[in-house]
Amino acid sequence: MDLRAPIRVYMTKKLIGVRPDDTVKRAGEVMVEFDIGSLVVVNDEGNVVGFLTKGDIIKRLVIPGLPNTTPPVKEIMTKDLVTVPSTASVGEVLDILSKKGIKHILVEEDGKIVGIFSISDLLEASRRRLETAIAAE
Amino acid sequence: MDLRAPIRVYMTKKLIGVRPDDTVKRAGEVMVEFDIGSLVVVNDEGNVVGFLTKGDIIKRLVIPGLPNTTPPVKEIMTKDLVTVPSTASVGEVLDILSKKGIKHILVEEDGKIVGIFSISDLLEASRRRLETAIAAE
Repeated sequence: MDLRAPIRVYMTKKLIGVRPDDTVKRAGEVMVEFDIGSLVVVNDEGNVVGFLTKGDIIKRLVIPGLPNTTPPVKEIMTKDLVTVPSTASVGEVLDILSKKGIKHILVEEDGKIVGIFSISDLLEASRRRLETAIAAE
Repeated sequence: MDLRAPIRVYMTKKLIGVRPDDTVKRAGEVMVEFDIGSLVVVNDEGNVVGFLTKGDIIKRLVIPGLPNTTPPVKEIMTKDLVTVPSTASVGEVLDILSKKGIKHILVEEDGKIVGIFSISDLLEASRRRLETAIAAE
């Protein structure tokens, strides 16, 4: 992984989302099905209006002991989206993740969310680096 | 991060745990308090008898819609512990994490759990690598 490369190179372009009125049960099912730790919340116009992580579910549903059908996703999602421009370097993005203590970040281009980068992507990139190093021997 | 170094160098030695009879509410609170995605479950003899991730809580409590007080942690924890020896290389460990699709792994030495390695540790190591690279310029 080239830490100076733009994050665009390593981000995941396929965004997996739920609707604001979906239940948290549904959001959990989608996370399990796709084996991901976060989801974007997309409204009818196709705009990303929120972000939901496993941590949000633990903090705002499991700990208070709320049922999984109410509140819907929009009540427990994070509305204050953390984004980086697609031109930001991998190093800058890792720095933001670490300082904010978050594991996923949205990538934005021309005012639109175009991808997501998570520390799982970092795992894959590190593995590829290892394979390249071994192949070069 | 030297991918050939033993995982011992990068693992977190401080294990944060709950008891088998603790509630999932309590486990969630500990995860939020320490900002971690997994916990070890430790019995009265001090042995690690299980492992609990945010994903386990989503899958086995939130989706089925169970209350946060029952079942206790022991009913939803993972009992089949995935461990690596402390001498395994970082590269081998990343490979296991990736192939198994997991984000945390326990590190074992002489039959005892001595640490945990998660992809958050990978984030910190990558950041240090960047700082070293910049300092060397």
